[in-house]
Order: sequence, then structure tokens, then C-alpha cells
Amino acid sequence: MKVVDEIIKKAAERAAKETENVPEELFVGEAVQWPVELKIGKGLEGAIACETKIGYVNGPKGWLIYRGYNIFDLALHSCYEETAYLLLFGELPNKQQFEEFKEKMLKYRDIPEEVIETLKKIPKTTHPMAALRTGLSVLGNFDDKADEVTLENDQEIAIKIISSLATIAGAFYRIRNGKEVVKPDKTLSHAGNFLYMMFGEKPSELAERLMDIALILHADHGMNASTFTTMVINSSLSDLYSSIVGGIGSLKGPLHGGANEQVIYMLKEIGTPDNVEQWYKKARAEKRKVMGFGHRVYKAYDPRARILGPLAELMAKDDPQLNNLYQTAIKLEKLVIEDLGKTKKVFPNVDYYSGIVYTGLGIDTTFFTPIFAVSRVAGWCARVLEYLPVNRIFRPRAVYTGPLKREYVLMENR
Amino acid sequence: MKVVDEIIKKAAERAAKETENVPEELFVGEAVQWPVELKIGKGLEGAIACETKIGYVNGPKGWLIYRGYNIFDLALHSCYEETAYLLLFGELPNKQQFEEFKEKMLKYRDIPEEVIETLKKIPKTTHPMAALRTGLSVLGNFDDKADEVTLENDQEIAIKIISSLATIAGAFYRIRNGKEVVKPDKTLSHAGNFLYMMFGEKPSELAERLMDIALILHADHGMNASTFTTMVINSSLSDLYSSIVGGIGSLKGPLHGGANEQVIYMLKEIGTPDNVEQWYKKARAEKRKVMGFGHRVYKAYDPRARILGPLAELMAKDDPQLNNLYQTAIKLEKLVIEDLGKTKKVFPNVDYYSGIVYTGLGIDTTFFTPIFAVSRVAGWCARVLEYLPVNRIFRPRAVYTGPLKREYVLMENR
Repeated sequence: MKVVDEIIKKAAERAAKETENVPEELFVGEAVQWPVELKIGKGLEGAIACETKIGYVNGPKGWLIYRGYNIFDLALHSCYEETAYLLLFGELPNKQQFEEFKEKMLKYRDIPEEVIETLKKIPKTTHPMAALRTGLSVLGNFDDKADEVTLENDQEIAIKIISSLATIAGAFYRIRNGKEVVKPDKTLSHAGNFLYMMFGEKPSELAERLMDIALILHADHGMNASTFTTMVINSSLSDLYSSIVGGIGSLKGPLHGGANEQVIYMLKEIGTPDNVEQWYKKARAEKRKVMGFGHRVYKAYDPRARILGPLAELMAKDDPQLNNLYQTAIKLEKLVIEDLGKTKKVFPNVDYYSGIVYTGLGIDTTFFTPIFAVSRVAGWCARVLEYLPVNRIFRPRAVYTGPLKREYVLMENR
Repeated sequence: MKVVDEIIKKAAERAAKETENVPEELFVGEAVQWPVELKIGKGLEGAIACETKIGYVNGPKGWLIYRGYNIFDLALHSCYEETAYLLLFGELPNKQQFEEFKEKMLKYRDIPEEVIETLKKIPKTTHPMAALRTGLSVLGNFDDKADEVTLENDQEIAIKIISSLATIAGAFYRIRNGKEVVKPDKTLSHAGNFLYMMFGEKPSELAERLMDIALILHADHGMNASTFTTMVINSSLSDLYSSIVGGIGSLKGPLHGGANEQVIYMLKEIGTPDNVEQWYKKARAEKRKVMGFGHRVYKAYDPRARILGPLAELMAKDDPQLNNLYQTAIKLEKLVIEDLGKTKKVFPNVDYYSGIVYTGLGIDTTFFTPIFAVSRVAGWCARVLEYLPVNRIFRPRAVYTGPLKREYVLMENR
């Protein structure tokens, strides 16, 4: 779609221009010589968990790179299936490889009826990420090769999980809304089918493309808590289902995957663009966190937000309610950047505009994190598979600061 | 039971005597001053993840300590319920506290019928740890307070999970063996009821005590991969069910929880005590790993093996088949210690004799790891709860060693 392509091209140009004077300190490492001396903070900040060739974030330059390709090129030219292939196997597929991969992705959209039955049995109020966790856990039990932990076998299982997670999410979306689950439509792309499974009708070309872009943008992002979770679990040579189930559980937490949801609640609380100034003043005075800004790594505008912002604008054009959200967001962004952009390098992150795009697509706010999972699962699988041939079990230590040699007193004397 | 008490007392005496000349280098830390400089190996070896007052392992002395109490005292005097309370709350309970805690443990033995139905629907060949993972994931969906992540709420959920995991495990044990699931028996202890739920009949006093001791011995053990997994997941402020589901997935791996199972396969492969010498010679020549020996931390005899070894002997006394296993184990231990005990500090670890005890209790070999989980869940919950008030999300980094600035080539030109 030309209008979307133009938006991405412009975003890429702006990104290049605005950071052209930022020195290209790459923060790219040579192979690590173990053991390595490091300064470590709480939460293992600064510790090196592993080497990777999968993805790279350059905070000062605002770069997000998958396997050497920048995110703008992928958003412009690629699709989620191809991006997943790239993350898993390291190279863009040729036509034949791509057809074979898509064939498998299509095949694995079908999931056992027992998975759906379980999703129907749990309360409709179940946190959608908990439902996803449960659905994938059940699915894994039907794979009799789950425990054959070899690279080749896990590559196949990875494709299965990446494909079927969208089916599970789509099914639960309908179940919780009291609708019949629809079967996957194999004429549609992964993104298109995901929308179809949520809404029960074929998406517009624009909706499909926007979901596809959103899935590409969220597919990998350095070493974050959920990615790390999947690697820690798999490092005991557990099966890939167990690892991804754990990753879903980690992404579920509000400090991780839940932020885009919070952005929408915040924008709705603000109400209209006219209220932004007053709201922001009060928020700053109360030292309240403004959702969707700042990032541990990015010290420039998040490249994903550069793409999602104008896409949100595109969707808002003909939708007054959405436009109200978007205009509120734009105005708040301006204030925040004026206030903190230069001094503290605070800019919108990926979560700031993704929620507006999803709202424009008609998706329930409480379902934003599952979309994140349906995308990120590709990065999780890729990084777990990369670590498998060089596996060493993750086992940091804790420092014991408790008592020693306490005397056991029988209960009658306590 | 006097005979069991005597065994534990003797084990404690031997432990004290055999390590009396080992200097008491405690390896106990002061509060960590972050950031801290460390030398880190692969798998985050040497990295400090957190401080803890919950449990402590002193490798050279062969100490295992929960909240200041040594494992011999707990095995001798305590029960699993009390040990779980101690791990969670830091102190031994007085009578009233203990009664209230046991009351809750009893209440939470009952689980929703939907959990059982899901366990019935998955294939009987499902890895029992995958079934446990699934069962707990389903259970969490029925807890409408799962997502209220506060210390008080999570303490209650912890009791619920610790109690109900035994119910889930017991239920699946029967389902996979084609038997009807039995309801928990609330006249029995946690250990007794766990056996009852597996076998459908009340256990003997000896069986109940042995299971109770096994559960006490496995309840916590420093910062291992599964414990670390639960903490990483919870550090995004995800819910406790998600965290423990992840821990189960991690423990499932053969590098972690599966070792006691492997010991039994190995002993059965050896066959009889007469074959031990020849087998060991061959194994050494082939550099094959001898299961159940050595430990990353212990450089002395594992205190848990000191207890479980003589308990295995006790069980084997009147059971020729089990005695054959036990005598084979004893002979192999002797050879290994003669060969590697002095030079490499290789001794039996907890897994070496636990499998013989479980076999004596009549439990399927493939179900040993779930017993581990049913016990360790107390340590997992305790450590997650301890970290919650000082939480910082775990986010180490990866070093990118891949390419940069690759040019995207359209598919037709690949």
C-alpha cells in the first residue's frame, strides 16, 4: 500500500537525519572472552548473559536491527512470516525456502480441539496472557516430539509455536467476547488470519498491512526479561513449549508487556487535547509516570514509534473518536519532549502509538499484550535456538545474609 | 518413628565428624553494595542475582540451611508443612500459627474440577512435568485474585500453590495409570495425602514419614535454574502462577530435575552388584557421566544423600529387588569415592539415593521429577516473595556479534 510505504520511508529519513550527528558508538562486541569482569547492578543490570547474532539495539542512534537488517527496511519490504524466518535462520529466504516456510506456518495454524475446549472452560475474565500461557501449555502436550531437544527438532517446533500462538490468541479473543471460535483462514497471511480469527471476517488490506507491520516491529528487541526467561528455562534443556510458556508469563507483567494498554487508559483519562497541559503539569508535580515514554536502552526516538505514530495518524483521519486520542497523544508528546527530550533524552517508545493503532483496528485494550506475544514469540524462539548449541545452564548465585546455626526449638516450647 | 530418627541423628553425626577439619569459610555475604564488580562466566556463573535470607549451601562443609536451621534438624523434627511455613515467613510457627497454616493448606487441597478435566484430556503419555505445568496454569485462571500482586496476596497464593500442586501431581499420576482420581484426604498430612492421591489408599506410617522427609530435603537449594526462573518471571510483576509455571518448565529439563530418574536407569543397566566394577571401568574409559555424583556447589558429601542413603537401605531390607538396586548403588558409590572422592571431591548428591527411596515407595520412575517440584515449590514461592518488596526487573544484556547495515534485497533478486 503506497500510503503506508511512504509513511515508513519518511520515518526512516527522519530517523537518519535526526541522528546523523550522533556518533556511531556501536556498542557491538567481539566474541566474549569468558570469564569477563563486569560491574553489575541490581536486576543483573550490566551482566552479560550471552553473545547473539539475532538482534541489536543502538540506543543513542535509535537503531533496531534484526540479523543485520534495519527495522525500517523490514517494515517496508518484509512480512511477518519472512521476518520470523530471518530471525530463526539468519538469512532472508529465497523463494523456495519462503514457500516451504509459509506452507509449514499454514499447516500449524490448526490446533487440537482440546486446546480450544480448555480455553472455553476457563473463566472469560481470565487475563488473556494467562489464557495464552494455558493454551500453549496444553498444545505442547499434544506434540509427541516436544521432548526431543535437538536443534533440528526445535526449529520445527518453533515454527509450530510461532504459527499456533496466533490461533490460540484469536480463539480466546472470541471466546471471552462470547463468540464462536472460527477456523483459521489459510488464504490469508499470518497477520490477516490473526485479525480474521479475532473478528470472524476478512480484514481490509490496510488493517492486514498494519497488523503485519506491528508484528514485524515487535518480533525481537535485545535481551529483555521475557526473552531472558525463555533462555533460562531452556538452558536446563527443557522443551521449547515450557520455555515459551514461561516467556508469556514474564511478558504478562505490567513492568514488561502491559505498557501500551496503560497508554490508552492514560489518554482516555486525559480526555481531550485541551486537557493535556493541565494534566501534564499535575502529573509532573505528583511525579507520576507518564506512560509510553523513555526506555532503558533508547536515548533517541524509538524507531518503532517513528513508524507507528504516523500510522496512528493515518487511521485516525476518518475516525473522530480515534482522532481525539491521537491528537491528545500528539500534544502530550510535544510537551514531554520540550520538557525532557533534550535534557533527559526522553522520547516516545513503541508502546506510545501501538495502542492507538490497535484501537483503530478495533481490538480490545486488554488484548494488546497478547498481540505483543504473538509477535515476540519469533524472537524468543530464535534466541533459544541460538543458545542451544552453546548451552550452559543459567545459574547465578545469591548472597546469603541470613542467620546460621539457629537451634531448633520444639513446638511446645515456642 | 524411632528407626528413622536414629538414621537421621547418625547421618548428622557423621556429617559433623567428617567435615570437622574443613575450615569454616562461610561464604556468607554482607548486604551487597550495588553496583558490584565481579568475574562472570558463561551461564551467569559468578554473577550475583540478589541477596537472600532463605537458604544457604556451604559446599566445603556440606551444609544445607533453611532460614538458619540445618537440614538434619529439620528432617528429624519438622514436617513439610512447617518447613514450608519457615521458608515463607522466616520463623518456625507457634502452635496457633501452625494450626492456621495447616488449615489453609487443607482448604487449598481442593482444586476446580476443570483442572482435572484438562488433565484427563491431554495424552496419557504427556511428560508429567508438562502436565503439572498445564494443571497449575489452568488452576491459576480460576483465581480471581491472581493479578493482585501484593506481598500479602501473594503469600496467600503461595500457600494455595504449595498445597494444590500435590493434588495436581497426584491426580495426573492416577490418570496416566488409567485410574480414577481420588479426592484429597484431609485427615492426612501433606506428604501422606500426596501418597494417598497417587495410590488411592492410606500410606503406612513409614511411607508417610519417608515422603515427608524427601519433601523437606528438596524444598530449597540456593539459586538454581528453576528458582532463578521463577524470580525472573515475577520481576516483571507478573502473577505468582505464571512464575511457578515457569519454574516447573525449567525443573523439567534433564540438566536440572531429571537426574534422579537417570540414576535408576543407570543402576538397572548395571543390573547387579557383581557387574559394578566392570561397568564402572568401561564408563570411565568411555568418559561417560556417572549419574548422581558431583555437584556444582557441594565439595563434600551432600547432606541430603547422607539421610537418603540409609533410608534407602532401610526400605531395601525386606525387598530383594530393591535391595539389589541398593547394593549396586552402594558398591558403585564405594568405587567412585575411592577413585574421585579425595582428588576431585566427587561424592553422591541428593539424586543418588532419592530414586531408590521413591522406587521403594512404589512410585513410577518417570514421576520422580514431579515429586521434586511438589517439594521445591515452597522454596520457589519463598524466594519470589522475598524479592517482591525490593524488586528490580532482571535484564542482563547480550553482546551483539552479528552483521550491521545489511542491504535488503527483494525476493526476486535472491
